[in-house]
Amino acid sequence: MLHPDRLFSSDETQRNIARRLYREVAGLPIISPHGHTDPVWFADNDCFPDPANLLVTPDHYVFRMLYSQGVPLEKLGIQRLDGGGIESDPRKIWQCFADHYHLFLGTPSKIWLDHALHEVFGVNTQLDAESAMEIYDQCNGLLTSEEFRPRALFDRFNIGFLATTESALDDLAAHDRIRESDWDGQVVTTYRPDAVVDPEFEGFSDNLANLASITGEDTSVWQGYLNAHRARRQYFMQRGATATDHGHPIPFTCDLPVSTCQSLLDGALAGTLSASEAELFRGQMLIEMAAMSIEDGLVMQIHAGVVRNHNARVMQEFGRDKGGDLPAAVDYVAGLKSLLDKFGNEQNLNIILFTLDETTYGRDLAPLAGHYPVLKLGPPWWFFDSVEGMLRYKRGVLETAGFYNTCGFNDDTRAFLSIPARHDVARRIDCRHLAELIVEHRLDEDQAFDLAREQAVGLVKQAYKVAAS
Amino acid sequence: MLHPDRLFSSDETQRNIARRLYREVAGLPIISPHGHTDPVWFADNDCFPDPANLLVTPDHYVFRMLYSQGVPLEKLGIQRLDGGGIESDPRKIWQCFADHYHLFLGTPSKIWLDHALHEVFGVNTQLDAESAMEIYDQCNGLLTSEEFRPRALFDRFNIGFLATTESALDDLAAHDRIRESDWDGQVVTTYRPDAVVDPEFEGFSDNLANLASITGEDTSVWQGYLNAHRARRQYFMQRGATATDHGHPIPFTCDLPVSTCQSLLDGALAGTLSASEAELFRGQMLIEMAAMSIEDGLVMQIHAGVVRNHNARVMQEFGRDKGGDLPAAVDYVAGLKSLLDKFGNEQNLNIILFTLDETTYGRDLAPLAGHYPVLKLGPPWWFFDSVEGMLRYKRGVLETAGFYNTCGFNDDTRAFLSIPARHDVARRIDCRHLAELIVEHRLDEDQAFDLAREQAVGLVKQAYKVAAS
Amino acid sequence: MLHPDRLFSSDETQRNIARRLYREVAGLPIISPHGHTDPVWFADNDCFPDPANLLVTPDHYVFRMLYSQGVPLEKLGIQRLDGGGIESDPRKIWQCFADHYHLFLGTPSKIWLDHALHEVFGVNTQLDAESAMEIYDQCNGLLTSEEFRPRALFDRFNIGFLATTESALDDLAAHDRIRESDWDGQVVTTYRPDAVVDPEFEGFSDNLANLASITGEDTSVWQGYLNAHRARRQYFMQRGATATDHGHPIPFTCDLPVSTCQSLLDGALAGTLSASEAELFRGQMLIEMAAMSIEDGLVMQIHAGVVRNHNARVMQEFGRDKGGDLPAAVDYVAGLKSLLDKFGNEQNLNIILFTLDETTYGRDLAPLAGHYPVLKLGPPWWFFDSVEGMLRYKRGVLETAGFYNTCGFNDDTRAFLSIPARHDVARRIDCRHLAELIVEHRLDEDQAFDLAREQAVGLVKQAYKVAAS
Repeated sequence: MLHPDRLFSSDETQRNIARRLYREVAGLPIISPHGHTDPVWFADNDCFPDPANLLVTPDHYVFRMLYSQGVPLEKLGIQRLDGGGIESDPRKIWQCFADHYHLFLGTPSKIWLDHALHEVFGVNTQLDAESAMEIYDQCNGLLTSEEFRPRALFDRFNIGFLATTESALDDLAAHDRIRESDWDGQVVTTYRPDAVVDPEFEGFSDNLANLASITGEDTSVWQGYLNAHRARRQYFMQRGATATDHGHPIPFTCDLPVSTCQSLLDGALAGTLSASEAELFRGQMLIEMAAMSIEDGLVMQIHAGVVRNHNARVMQEFGRDKGGDLPAAVDYVAGLKSLLDKFGNEQNLNIILFTLDETTYGRDLAPLAGHYPVLKLGPPWWFFDSVEGMLRYKRGVLETAGFYNTCGFNDDTRAFLSIPARHDVARRIDCRHLAELIVEHRLDEDQAFDLAREQAVGLVKQAYKVAAS
Repeated sequence: MLHPDRLFSSDETQRNIARRLYREVAGLPIISPHGHTDPVWFADNDCFPDPANLLVTPDHYVFRMLYSQGVPLEKLGIQRLDGGGIESDPRKIWQCFADHYHLFLGTPSKIWLDHALHEVFGVNTQLDAESAMEIYDQCNGLLTSEEFRPRALFDRFNIGFLATTESALDDLAAHDRIRESDWDGQVVTTYRPDAVVDPEFEGFSDNLANLASITGEDTSVWQGYLNAHRARRQYFMQRGATATDHGHPIPFTCDLPVSTCQSLLDGALAGTLSASEAELFRGQMLIEMAAMSIEDGLVMQIHAGVVRNHNARVMQEFGRDKGGDLPAAVDYVAGLKSLLDKFGNEQNLNIILFTLDETTYGRDLAPLAGHYPVLKLGPPWWFFDSVEGMLRYKRGVLETAGFYNTCGFNDDTRAFLSIPARHDVARRIDCRHLAELIVEHRLDEDQAFDLAREQAVGLVKQAYKVAAS
Repeated sequence: MLHPDRLFSSDETQRNIARRLYREVAGLPIISPHGHTDPVWFADNDCFPDPANLLVTPDHYVFRMLYSQGVPLEKLGIQRLDGGGIESDPRKIWQCFADHYHLFLGTPSKIWLDHALHEVFGVNTQLDAESAMEIYDQCNGLLTSEEFRPRALFDRFNIGFLATTESALDDLAAHDRIRESDWDGQVVTTYRPDAVVDPEFEGFSDNLANLASITGEDTSVWQGYLNAHRARRQYFMQRGATATDHGHPIPFTCDLPVSTCQSLLDGALAGTLSASEAELFRGQMLIEMAAMSIEDGLVMQIHAGVVRNHNARVMQEFGRDKGGDLPAAVDYVAGLKSLLDKFGNEQNLNIILFTLDETTYGRDLAPLAGHYPVLKLGPPWWFFDSVEGMLRYKRGVLETAGFYNTCGFNDDTRAFLSIPARHDVARRIDCRHLAELIVEHRLDEDQAFDLAREQAVGLVKQAYKVAAS
């Protein structure tokens, strides 16, 4: 079902070289330094649910496309906040999905889903309205087998390192269970403090109260609040974290006097900050987080430029993260100025930048990363984690930033079964791109072999401080 | 003169597949759901004028390029507002055009003009300074023949559906004559209310007085004004309209209380609105038009992001639409928020978005259309209705929006003789792109055949509610 | 070492055509109408320094990349403002550079450096840590030979015309010495008045005092200040200048009453202008410079959209131009409106626009140049003077602007030894692009031969008013 030459150029010379390069990297372990899988899976190693609840209902790429074509979210089993009626029969959800599978033609979702069905489950027919139930039954049967438990799949997928992402308030109990178990899979956490850094996050003051009670710090006082972060970062590091992650509406940073920080914190707790004051608070916290990274060595990821929950009705009826997040135009050159003025030339700080605004590849990000020692560029993110997205990234970024200011691939997914597919796509596109450079005499073949391995494993381990395994 | 493989990839494998796909769609009828041809042509079926007045003088793509290289508009027969002297000999205009025809190398205009000359007129030589008069005479002779009358060409071009665009104040007499004639060509109108929606349009208050007298509504009162629109939409629908079209400087929308709307209307009639109040008025009217589309079913097109008549001197001496329109940077994610908050999840509303700002393909438009049920994406518009423009659109949009949130091709032209060329280019690029996906194993060939037909005919009929013919 | 087919497409049909086209243009003289080489080289014809001080220390492309990967600027011999210790042994600098040469894989810098090493110096091994000293010695030996003096290389490089860029305050003594010498190399200056046009330039009021003393005009009075510019432009024209060059943070223009201009000048001299007033001053001066270009015929270049010296610490420790310049998002359609309202339709004015914001290619620049007679587009600039950058430019600009509203290539470099490489890359990409158009039947081969020559020599001579040589 999956062609061995898929995603390579149709030019025979290029394709032959791409094949050779790919053979070198296809079998390397997966290093997944940023994503959203659930550590409970690996802690408890329970069977995954049925195919619909595994592949359809939780995947925002999937249900946003179905919704855009008129399929109600209720029919896909998405929980309503008012507890209203939704489809609860996974077979019906799966049939609905299969009926509309043509909507995914040409999309990354189809590449990932086909890979999961054909490679992971061994399905031999194309998914469509007719084959839906047969495929459902085949997958559903396998999902109760030992070989399809989370740890078995993790090992089968040849995952060498997997970072999940947890709220700063998470007790990381699942991570403790993983580390205490006899399983040797390397699963670590990542410090994601949005809920206690963004004054506009739901329940911010409650979150800070919670943070205070966990850490014993007075989070209503600026230094206490910062110390609470320090404590939680240590707690996360003890569970293997090598990185933090920061989701901000825009990549704005600022460096304010402590007295102003205290006033902003007071306002944030009182819920009285204006939108621009909230931005100041977040911008200040990016600098504070960078300062702590210099202290404790955690790598800092910035995922900026998302308008969260743009669809008001979907947000009201179904809650957050239901496919209504949209990119925003951003300016990293101006936005990061304060952070870079303060810490841009540090030797002991790694900041990895991500964007959903492709105009920043050549105008902001590549020139920034090609100069500032602290900056590296994350791979194409979200909507751009795709064949064309990756090619545009490579062509738009590498000439100015160079390969060594990038850091390999992230799958950034909660869809565990798509992880092998996503890394496979990334490696294929790496090899395709390198083959193109070789045949155009822009790179020697031996250099390209090195770069292919670097992009698959080396750069990501170095950028994220992943211990050699 | 026109190579049968033109615009296909030079890769033999891709080209062979593209040829096969193209054979499937080349002969399908042209569905032209948005454009600016003159219904009088089809109503009266008079002969077209001479080649210069048909192909040069009215085509802003042509005269803007000539003007940019120093050819005075007067030499091209463009009317001056002061009645000043201009070239009136069409042979001299044609000769001037031919003398400068090399300026169009590599441009879409040359593709369209060559197609018209060689395919429509049967010219066998390249247009240049030497061949100019011979070609002029050949074309001029044909233009007086029965076979070159508008209806005959319409039939010869295999046009299955053609929508023109008329002002809300138009009496649509030409459309009535078409419908009352014995000719069965399907030519319909489109409701374009800019002149009575944009307070900055020349003569806005006169236009509203006119609208009042046509409809019998009091257009100085908000509800009367809206009712006048309702009446005109009905009138247009009776002449076959399936859609409205809205040309706005930016894609801004807002949802204001009725009392504010009335104040803005008062100010608009008095000519006292500030620039930002005028934007509020236009933004409110996009929501009102969407509301009416839910009532009456008209598809809503938004062509936003144009700075009209940027060249002050050309505007002053020659008037509107003389090649001085320029794109503007726009933000659909923020701009459409109010409209989408109100109507984004409707099942009975089709809104088709167009842009001249390519940065919005992947950052705004594809993510919006890949989520909101009411949104679809129009094809590459204006300067981007070109080989490279279409390829960038496909590569930038389809992975996130999917094929089914797009709606085929628009020619958007007043240059009737270019219509077959424009649709031919679109179909060739569709097939080229699909062939690329096939050889890279991103699409099966049978799926591609379906998609080629959908892109040529199916998607556009569905999006624009064109009755099956 | 350098493959004869480098940078051509791997498609055999395209490559064969590209080869034929390239053979036509490879040997044409280099016309370099804009750059930053030092006229003292050609005036005095002294030997160049050692390889490190020739190729590493002065090249901001090179040291910005090394710095981004943690190499201190001191180790590259970059002078500190405080006179602090830096590496002074050129062999150690060269070794450090060679140790990190892999950082340049896939970058334009590597293409240029490899060309210089292999073509200019005849080096036969790849530069790396091992070969560093051997290559250093080989190059260092040659640099003391007669054949490697500036004039000999200029002749060997087949440079037909070279424009340097000097401050308005420069006495152009080196240019006088060149013109008075018996050497017939055509080296001219360019009028770059940033230091006396930008109120935020270091020492602006001193610069104006200097300008006054040079010209005898009272530069504290608006007309005197303008007259001083007129005088300096004449002085530059007497040293062969055909053009001016303007580096502005944004492409903003305005047309203010003389009284306001005088107030701004007063404030600029007193150092009391706000940031937005400084922008008004610069915007006014672009219009004044255009007015003078209509008087004296100098071609006007606008290089807009750079945030200079973004890295505060590097600026403080090492000074200007140390790799910390970054692109800015810009808007030419709005920004140039005042200039174009006043002079956009002139027949005797050439304005050449450059951008570091690629979003403006299709949205601003190509539509502007495809309409306004005074506008032409400069080649891809700086970070985009690269293989991918040039291909994006061609695909994004030419369909709307046409070939004849562009003006060939600029090397824009102070790295003299990279000039043949840069022009070679440009010509190769020209031929590659033309070959692509030919095989896709978008251009005839004979037209392509003409266009290849035009792009290499004809368009640039015409746009910059370079006398036929």
